[in-house]
This record gives sequence, C-alpha cells and structure tokens, in this order.
Amino acid sequence: MRQTDKYAIIMAGGVGSRFWPMSTSEFPKQFHDMLGTGDTLIQHTFKRLNHSVPTENIYILTNERYDQLVLEQLPEISKEQVITEPAMRNTAPCILYASLKIQKQNPNAVMVVAPSDHWIEDEAAFTDNLEQCFTACAESDILMTLGITPTFANTGYGYIQYDKSEEVVKKVMQFTEKPDYATAKSFLKQGNYLWNAGIFIWSVSSITAAFEEYQKDMTHLFKKGNLVYNTEGEADFITQHYPKADNISIDYAILEKATNVYVKPAGFDWNDLGTWGSLYDKLDKTEESNAVVNARVLCEDACGNMIRTKANKIVVVDGLQDYIIVDKDEVLLIYPKKKEQDIKQVLKKVTEEYGAEFG
Amino acid sequence: MRQTDKYAIIMAGGVGSRFWPMSTSEFPKQFHDMLGTGDTLIQHTFKRLNHSVPTENIYILTNERYDQLVLEQLPEISKEQVITEPAMRNTAPCILYASLKIQKQNPNAVMVVAPSDHWIEDEAAFTDNLEQCFTACAESDILMTLGITPTFANTGYGYIQYDKSEEVVKKVMQFTEKPDYATAKSFLKQGNYLWNAGIFIWSVSSITAAFEEYQKDMTHLFKKGNLVYNTEGEADFITQHYPKADNISIDYAILEKATNVYVKPAGFDWNDLGTWGSLYDKLDKTEESNAVVNARVLCEDACGNMIRTKANKIVVVDGLQDYIIVDKDEVLLIYPKKKEQDIKQVLKKVTEEYGAEFG
Repeated sequence: MRQTDKYAIIMAGGVGSRFWPMSTSEFPKQFHDMLGTGDTLIQHTFKRLNHSVPTENIYILTNERYDQLVLEQLPEISKEQVITEPAMRNTAPCILYASLKIQKQNPNAVMVVAPSDHWIEDEAAFTDNLEQCFTACAESDILMTLGITPTFANTGYGYIQYDKSEEVVKKVMQFTEKPDYATAKSFLKQGNYLWNAGIFIWSVSSITAAFEEYQKDMTHLFKKGNLVYNTEGEADFITQHYPKADNISIDYAILEKATNVYVKPAGFDWNDLGTWGSLYDKLDKTEESNAVVNARVLCEDACGNMIRTKANKIVVVDGLQDYIIVDKDEVLLIYPKKKEQDIKQVLKKVTEEYGAEFG
Repeated sequence: MRQTDKYAIIMAGGVGSRFWPMSTSEFPKQFHDMLGTGDTLIQHTFKRLNHSVPTENIYILTNERYDQLVLEQLPEISKEQVITEPAMRNTAPCILYASLKIQKQNPNAVMVVAPSDHWIEDEAAFTDNLEQCFTACAESDILMTLGITPTFANTGYGYIQYDKSEEVVKKVMQFTEKPDYATAKSFLKQGNYLWNAGIFIWSVSSITAAFEEYQKDMTHLFKKGNLVYNTEGEADFITQHYPKADNISIDYAILEKATNVYVKPAGFDWNDLGTWGSLYDKLDKTEESNAVVNARVLCEDACGNMIRTKANKIVVVDGLQDYIIVDKDEVLLIYPKKKEQDIKQVLKKVTEEYGAEFG
C-alpha cells in the first residue's frame, strides 16, 4: 500500500437537531466550534484524518446546501473533493457513489469513512488504529469498523458483538441497533460488545464487491455512472439517478449482512457529541461543575450547567442545577439537561410557531 | 395663574442599578422602553406633564453624561431646558438651582417636580390631580406632594402621615423613610398614611422661601448666581459652585422641616418601577403568568417569570418559576425574583470581575 492509496470520506450531511439552537439546518453542528477550541468539528475531523490520508484524497460527503460552508471551513481542499447529494438519502447510496468515484481513480485504494461531528481527543491513538486497519484491509478482503469500548449501558448507540476467541482485529458476530436498557446492561456484562461509532475502513474493491453481492439494484444504478465519474458529465448523471436510490444505511445495507466484517477495539476515548449532555461530559468544568463555552459566568448556587454563548458574553446564573443555557443572537434556550432528548420537539414547536428560520 | 406660569422639573439623574443589566450607568432605566410600549420612561413622563405644562417650561435635571440622551429622546425641547449637575448631589441642590432659574424668568411660576422613571397609567387622573395642586399652590404659600394610597406594607418606600380631620388637600404631620415591616403594617391600619412618590408641587416663591428658612447656606450659595442664571455666565458659575452644595435630599432638607406641607391623595395607580419585580407586577401576563417584554416565548412548566430580550428573540424556558430572565447583547441574567434586591451586588461583582463597561 502506497501513501497515495489511502482515502477518506467525511460524512457531513447531518443536522444535529438535538444541539439546537446552536445547530440548525442552516448551520449544523459539524460546522460549529462546539468545544470552543478554535476549530469547528469538521476541521478537527479533517486534521485528524489528514495525519494518515493525503489532503487531496479526503472527500467530504454532504448536502448541496452545505457546499459553501465546507469550502470555507476547509480551504485546503478543491471543489471536486466536496461530494454533494442532490437528495437526502441514508448513508449507503452516498458511500457507494463515493467508493465508485475513488475506485475509478485508484483501484488499489483503501478508504476510511468517518462522521464529521464526533470528538476524539487522542489523535495519535486514532492514527495508530487507523493505520492498522488500513493495512489489514489492504491485505485481506474484509470490511472493518473501529469499535468503542463501552463505559455504560447507553441505549442510544448501536452495539457490535465480536468473537472473543480472536485477537487484535476481531470478527464481528452481530450488530444491534439501540438496545433496551436490560439488553445494553447484559452486553456490557458479556464483555465482547463495542459501540458502533460509524467509523469504517475497507478497500474500494472489498466494499464495491459487498455492494455487488448485497445491494444489486443500487450497485447497478450507480455503476451506470462509471464512465462519467470524475468528469464533467458526473453532475448531470447524479442529479438524475441519485434520487432513485434506496434510503438505507450502510449498516443495514451491508454490514449486518456481510460475513467478512471485523472490528478493531479503539485505543482512544470517543464522544459522539450527540447531545448537550454529552458535550457537558466532554468539557472541562468550573469549580461549581459548570461547563462553559465562550461565556464569562458569575454562578451562585448553580452547578452542573452547560452554558454556551457568543464570545465573552457575561452570564449571571443563580439557583439553577443541571440546565442547558444556550444563547444565540436570535434564540435563548434555558432547558433541563435531563430533558435534552426533547429538544428536537422544542425545535419543532418553535419552527411551527415562529417560522422555519429558527430551525 | 396663567398657563405659562406652570413649570415642571423632571428628575433624570438616577442610574436604576436594580434594573441591571437593562439599566446601566451608561444608559439608565429612564431612557429605556421598560414596558415595551414604544416610548421610554422619560418620554412617558414628559408627555404626561406636557398635558398641563407648556413644552418650553419643562426642564430636565440630569447628570452631564446623559445630556445627549435627553436631547435625543426629547427632541421637542431646547438645550437650555436640560439642566445638568456638574457633580453628583442629592435632590435638594438641583431643585433649588432649578427653582431660582425659573423664578428669575417668572416670579409667578408654580412648578411640579417629578421622577422620570415611574409609571402612571391613568394620565387623565394625574393631570386632574396636578391641576388641583397647581391651583392650591398658586393661591397659598404651601408645599405640596402627591401621595399614593398604599396597597401593602412596603418597607422600601417613604410614608407620609396626614391630618385626618382635613379635606381634599391634607396637612402633612410626618414623613417616615423606609419603616420596618411592623411599622409599615400599623401605618396601613391607621389609614392616614400615603406613599411618598417624590412628586412635589409648589410656587417658586414658596420653595425659595422655605430654602431661605431651612437651608440658609445652600440658599446663600445658589443665590449668588441670580445675576448669571439664564445667561452665558451660568455654566461657569455652576461648575464652580455646585460641588460646594451639601449632598442632601429635598425631603430631609425642606419637607421634613417645613410646617406648610400638604398632601393630595393621588387618584391614580402608580408603580415606581424600582425593581424587576415591580415591573413584573405592572405588566400584562401570559396564560402561564409570565411577563414578557419583546421576546417570543415558549414556556413549559414555567410561570411567574419576568422575561425581557431585544425585539422578537425566541426564548425557550422549561421548569423555571419566579425568575428574572433578561438578555442584552453582552449580558444574560437568570436570577430569582425573590433576590431582586441583590442585583446591585451582582452588578458590583460583575464590574469588579469583568470591567466597568458592563455596569
């Protein structure tokens, strides 16, 4: 495997509505500096992958409306590296499409698919894990995923069961999407379950072969474009054919069906930054256990709060525990952390009552 | 008494720090549209007085730094109608100074002194009361005040005891500043006590005579300016002599001493808008008993809150009762209404910690 055989696809089409009002359909989570580090989440993700993958081999999969945001935030890439979906589909169609484009350029390519909006602190460990997976995938016809060692019985994640008998890279026995609490607890007890972080590694030949076997129609649909991919004709072809693809996830379309799926337990801490609460968990806390991004706070009898404003805003809070306090120019949210899953509903109500521009 | 004999002095030098963060020393309460009516408090006050007093006879007493704010908000007045104090003093010096200026213009003047930042809903009743007082003061050598019928044993106000035996305009027996709760309760029970709203009416001849009798030094100090008042020499004289005046209130300097003080029980509802809580009391409430200025709210399990933002900001609040929620560009306050008296201390802490520009 040459250095130039390594490719990456960053999935950046999501909206992150549980992070409203920061994250909106106009300006989703991955384009925000959620942690106040100076870089947005997609910039962090790009840099992390760029340790292994050459700049020109990193593609961004996103919705057409975020095209300009991507190019603004990642000025080092070219227009051609932003692959936009003309219609909202799940992950399988866009991964197949990107894989075929890459395969046409370089049939020896190995590639990683990674979400744009997760947090990984230890970049060295990530790079090390990723390189091991690249090597494994270059050598064998396998589909790989990086699994996260679970720390508690989270019912919001997918779980990957692996074969205990094997070493280092483990054969996957089963995927389970969002189990109930009792099931999640039993998974942790059994010890051979990992969280599915949506990070996949494979060679283009292995993934296209798997599509050929398990998603014949979709493969037929997209292979018709092989002549025009990476040419001027590509855009027209995609506009015309993409909307015909099934709305289906890569997990369901391929990984739950294929028999050559392997997992490498990740050697790094990971946070999906799925909710304000998970962001709170990730951030450093003040003496009073408040997590503060950008604001300058004066807290009295107030702890466990997640506070975010524009830079340097003064926030005085008295008597609030475990709240999400998020202030944007046009929206102020003061909401209990324990109800964070309901923020989607709040967003729905706000847009119904006051207009779509707030969502 | 001719129409042109009526004068008014609007007291507009205060800071209103319990209304922080809306009210700041840079931009105090009286210059804000606290109720979201479209007019600022000083504009309301001006219009209310202007029903009785000719525009050119209304003076604004304020601090030098609010000079421009006054002229912007009251474009109908001339520069000469803004009387600025070169040093912070209590009410007695500036009232004497203004009275001498007016007396020099019109020895037959009767005048009303009124705070710029109180709320009076019923302007017709106010005008009617004021006209009665003007007439009484034009006819007799008396000092008058409009007293507010107390609705509860408020310990933050001054009380005026009057002689029960008299009619309509009642002789004042005693002023009591901020009594304790038991005393305030006994006042209400006795029935001949009114709240001191700081609205005074008198002829210039009566008030200057009272100063002559009870504040000899101050009168001597300011009478030295009689030759230059309303001329080019006034500013220099005031800059030089004003700082020498005692820091003393009109209540203490004159009203508690004079024997010709009368009170007219006011026929209108009044609110001193002294705190966020008193503003809450004044405002219309939503179904959930929240008082909302400018914001568009989505409240769940949230009642009794005073919510104020810039125009049309979306505010989502869940689970908060009896809070003050005030959002300004650079400051967000989330504070229990029951602790509203502590907002002065909060302001102090914020300016100490983050800089005077926030106060």
